[in-house]
Amino acid sequence: MTATSLDALQRLLPEGMVVTDPDVTDSYARDRTFCAPGTALGVVLARSREDVVTTLRWASEHRVPVVPRGAGTGLAGGATAVEGGVVLSLHKMTAIRELSPADEIAVVEPGVITADLDRAAREHGLMYAPDPSSYEISTIGGNLATNAGGLRCVKYGVTRDSTLGLEVVLADGRVLETGRRTVKGVTGYDLTGLFVGSEGTLGVITAATVRLRRAPLVPPATVAAEFPTLVSAAEAVAAVIAAGCQPSLLELLDRATLKAIDDWRNIGLDPDTAAMLIAQSDASDGQAAAERMAALFEEKGASFVAVSSTPEEAEELIGVRRLAYQAKERLGACLVEDVCVPRSRLPEMIAAVEATAARHEVPIFTVAHAGDGNLHPVFVFEHGLAEPPPHVWAAADEVFRAALDLGGTLTGEHGVGLLKRRWLDLETSPVARELQHGIKQVFDPLGIMNPGKAI
Amino acid sequence: MTATSLDALQRLLPEGMVVTDPDVTDSYARDRTFCAPGTALGVVLARSREDVVTTLRWASEHRVPVVPRGAGTGLAGGATAVEGGVVLSLHKMTAIRELSPADEIAVVEPGVITADLDRAAREHGLMYAPDPSSYEISTIGGNLATNAGGLRCVKYGVTRDSTLGLEVVLADGRVLETGRRTVKGVTGYDLTGLFVGSEGTLGVITAATVRLRRAPLVPPATVAAEFPTLVSAAEAVAAVIAAGCQPSLLELLDRATLKAIDDWRNIGLDPDTAAMLIAQSDASDGQAAAERMAALFEEKGASFVAVSSTPEEAEELIGVRRLAYQAKERLGACLVEDVCVPRSRLPEMIAAVEATAARHEVPIFTVAHAGDGNLHPVFVFEHGLAEPPPHVWAAADEVFRAALDLGGTLTGEHGVGLLKRRWLDLETSPVARELQHGIKQVFDPLGIMNPGKAI
Ligand SMILES: Cc1cc2nc3c(=O)[nH]c(=O)nc-3n(C[C@H](O)[C@H](O)[C@H](O)COP(=O)(O)OP(=O)(O)OC[C@H]3O[C@@H](n4cnc5c(N)ncnc54)[C@H](O)[C@@H]3O)c2cc1C
Ligand SMILES: Cc1cc2nc3c(=O)[nH]c(=O)nc-3n(C[C@H](O)[C@H](O)[C@H](O)COP(=O)(O)OP(=O)(O)OC[C@H]3O[C@@H](n4cnc5c(N)ncnc54)[C@H](O)[C@@H]3O)c2cc1C
Repeated sequence: MTATSLDALQRLLPEGMVVTDPDVTDSYARDRTFCAPGTALGVVLARSREDVVTTLRWASEHRVPVVPRGAGTGLAGGATAVEGGVVLSLHKMTAIRELSPADEIAVVEPGVITADLDRAAREHGLMYAPDPSSYEISTIGGNLATNAGGLRCVKYGVTRDSTLGLEVVLADGRVLETGRRTVKGVTGYDLTGLFVGSEGTLGVITAATVRLRRAPLVPPATVAAEFPTLVSAAEAVAAVIAAGCQPSLLELLDRATLKAIDDWRNIGLDPDTAAMLIAQSDASDGQAAAERMAALFEEKGASFVAVSSTPEEAEELIGVRRLAYQAKERLGACLVEDVCVPRSRLPEMIAAVEATAARHEVPIFTVAHAGDGNLHPVFVFEHGLAEPPPHVWAAADEVFRAALDLGGTLTGEHGVGLLKRRWLDLETSPVARELQHGIKQVFDPLGIMNPGKAI
Repeated sequence: MTATSLDALQRLLPEGMVVTDPDVTDSYARDRTFCAPGTALGVVLARSREDVVTTLRWASEHRVPVVPRGAGTGLAGGATAVEGGVVLSLHKMTAIRELSPADEIAVVEPGVITADLDRAAREHGLMYAPDPSSYEISTIGGNLATNAGGLRCVKYGVTRDSTLGLEVVLADGRVLETGRRTVKGVTGYDLTGLFVGSEGTLGVITAATVRLRRAPLVPPATVAAEFPTLVSAAEAVAAVIAAGCQPSLLELLDRATLKAIDDWRNIGLDPDTAAMLIAQSDASDGQAAAERMAALFEEKGASFVAVSSTPEEAEELIGVRRLAYQAKERLGACLVEDVCVPRSRLPEMIAAVEATAARHEVPIFTVAHAGDGNLHPVFVFEHGLAEPPPHVWAAADEVFRAALDLGGTLTGEHGVGLLKRRWLDLETSPVARELQHGIKQVFDPLGIMNPGKAI
């Protein structure tokens, strides 16, 4: 790659679409992790599929690495710029090409902000279910490429479960359509599923046909409860699932997180609380479901249980969850992790995190999508450091290994990116790795798509 | 492949596991289609993963095609024997290796009969949701390899949606583990999804980690209704979905099917009926949901509506659906098809089928999983023919093309197998085909896994 070849791309694309001003390119170099970026030679601000085709043809011809990028809210370093490559930003491709209430589907471009799609659907009594906490800032393209989860996925599943088909531009500029507009179909291998979660390493998603669902008819009913032990909270989670309460949200906050929130906002926390559970039901009989969950929480030993009876009260109860991340950011720089274990191993996993925090003297704050066994331990360290210091990595390493020992996985919803590549071999067998690289080779023989990420 | 090399396999496997008696091998040569089988040199009745490994190592060494086989209930010719190959039957691998109520998962071998897994789960208040109509006779391995659907999938999704991980023996005998025991995870490409629906062309599934769900607490409430026009029935389907009734079953029977059932069993059919809808709700407030659906059916012009108030009445209403297939089999040999269209195109699709039936003078009877837009037009022809006569294929061809024209797919849940290969190119682009063959090459470079099927 030379400046001359970038000139060629500039001539092929509309004026101003290829940006090389270092101040601008630098702002496209990182996501929300500490992964150190390489120096990109330029950023392409694509506005159409044709722009993407042009860029990838050029990149193939000149063997230039391409890093697809949505909003850069990723927590794995997937969108981190690669030395000598270009960043291909899709965030200006924001058309909702179609929204069919009859078929409950939408066809959207990758730059659409997740919450915007949800709002557009709600105008028709529908919703777009996947709701990462970042949904006001993340893009559908990034959600697809990471198979994003969220709070509602305990009931509605992850991004994959809402994806019917994709339009993808391959590394060589060819356009591929995968999947379908129907809810079912088994013609050929599931290429759609292969692209979801592939973190930009197989091609660039330029449109998606996604499934919408009926929006709940009533606002969700919420219940919050404090537990004296982790085990009692985990038993309460199991009881709620076993009773078929079908929560649309089931979150756990650990002792450290609660204390951080209480220190900041004084929520009147009982100092003996080991964990808080917050649950919602968005079913038509949601209030009854919330009452049932409250009864189960009490049965399992909750020291305090509150059920909302108005939307305002519901907002208040869920508000504590919303404070969790900010409460930690006040205390230092945050490394956000994302392990997932079988639900029954939740208390062991949280205990392992607490033991690691004590052993390495690293403050770790855990919030979990408890219904899915998906934990986000947040490792806090000194503000201003360029990256987490060694003892934080040592603690993270212990947490990853504990998750794997408990039959879990390194990443429930954030992806591997750059950040978790060094642990990949602990989870993935040599046979699986060989096959994954074989697949990569089929889609991207020159290896220009987001090299060094994910696999 | 020579008799000598088969001798080698016989020596490697336990006595009696390789069967060459033509009477027996012949009974393993076909599935439920009319696809003409090749002559297999033998059938391997595997009992363990090791038997599968041994067979595939041997097959790779001698370049012998291998046709994996479950129960042979397939409707696409996927398990049809290949000339000079071996049939590798998995139906004796029937262990449920694990069933964890706490994590709501089971680890099962491929020969487990679908309904047996469901029954095992129900002992713990759980269920295995995917329920192809064949679920008393089909195997989990076959369901996985075809991504089987069923009646409940309007609410619970297809087999893929219940699959967390797989154990697969690759063509060269290596063992691959895919996926995980957790409900979420994004480490690496989704190899699990790639195997589901791959019809035995990428490897042999020897175990699966599947997701169980809470079994409904009450028996389902059922509603049945007769409609004077297809359009009114389709509008009723749309209304039920739009109102968020969440049916756990939503089936449509067309005029021809109803007449065949009435002629046989005299169900008192109004001769002006164009279609019948049968819906169920298995929710805790299912009776209310059924009443709501009944009201919507009336609103959309149903001439007759019945709601069950007891499980016996529910059985009676759903009984009509159960008679559908037999009512046709009485009339001749059946070619069962499986197109799927966006739900809003359902009336057009049924109208197209009726027009084709008239034009080609072929009796076609359609039952549809209406909530999913998945239709099974059954083409009936003279008993005793070895395969459908040309005018039946001509009619089928028209139906396939109509489905594709309406934005649909050739197969919603049965797979492509041998049967639909000739139409594949109408749905799959050259780019997609090239990639699929590239993937096939990665997993099975010698091309011995179920050659000539699916892709
Ligand atoms: C406060 C906060 C809360 C969060 N909460 C959650 C949560 O609850 N659940 C969750 O899952 N994540 C969460 N995240 C992580 C992040 O928001 C998600 O991973 C999101 O999906 C990333 O979207 P993005 O548009 O920012 O993608 P980016 O960060 O720009 O990119 C992410 C990956 O996708 C690739 N990519 C982007 N667009 C395309 C495309 N069109 N084609 C191909 N590849 C592409 C990139 O190359 C990269 O590998 C959170 C992040 C923050 C900062
Ligand atoms: C009366 C009737 C009703 C039916 N209703 C439905 C329905 O509602 N929904 C539906 O989806 N289908 C239905 N079917 C079709 C059929 O039952 C399904 O396709 C079923 O999944 C096939 O299972 P099987 O065990 O019989 O597989 P087989 O027919 O033996 O094989 C099917 C395919 O799977 C492959 N295969 C089998 N086992 C393995 C393995 N362990 N590893 C790798 N590949 C393997 C075979 O090579 C073949 O390609 C019906 C069939 C009948 C006869």
